[in-house]
Amino acid sequence: MPKPEILDPQGKAVAAALSRLGFDQFANARQGKRFELEVEGEVTDEVLAAARAAGEQVLSNPVIEDVVAVYADETAVTA
Amino acid sequence: MPKPEILDPQGKAVAAALSRLGFDQFANARQGKRFELEVEGEVTDEVLAAARAAGEQVLSNPVIEDVVAVYADETAVTA
Repeated sequence: MPKPEILDPQGKAVAAALSRLGFDQFANARQGKRFELEVEGEVTDEVLAAARAAGEQVLSNPVIEDVVAVYADETAVTA
Repeated sequence: MPKPEILDPQGKAVAAALSRLGFDQFANARQGKRFELEVEGEVTDEVLAAARAAGEQVLSNPVIEDVVAVYADETAVTA
């Protein structure tokens, strides 16, 4: 997600659109990226650490973005 | 996130970059969007339902994208 001190014009546009369309529950909005990384086998702590490292080193621009959430979604497991 | 049957060239590029850079734990990657909606007051079930509705009607393109995760993050609460 964009760092708190970074202006987020996409998020501003989203917040304005939401309130215009009647979604007035939301005071503000920010837009960022979401990645799903598929793992074969078990999601161990090492894999999660690698996912966080990948997020920080490859998937985000650390000058303007923070990695805010790295978690395993076991429900996505398929046979 | 892009629906499973939709080609995701961004995700393919991410997956290729990860494996090239030594992150070989990940078999595949998909890229989508993430929104943070700020709520003043408590995040009730109604607010979460409104957030899901906003995600499905405003924030995503339902032809090619699914809303995959809507949740409250109490840790983001500030005074």
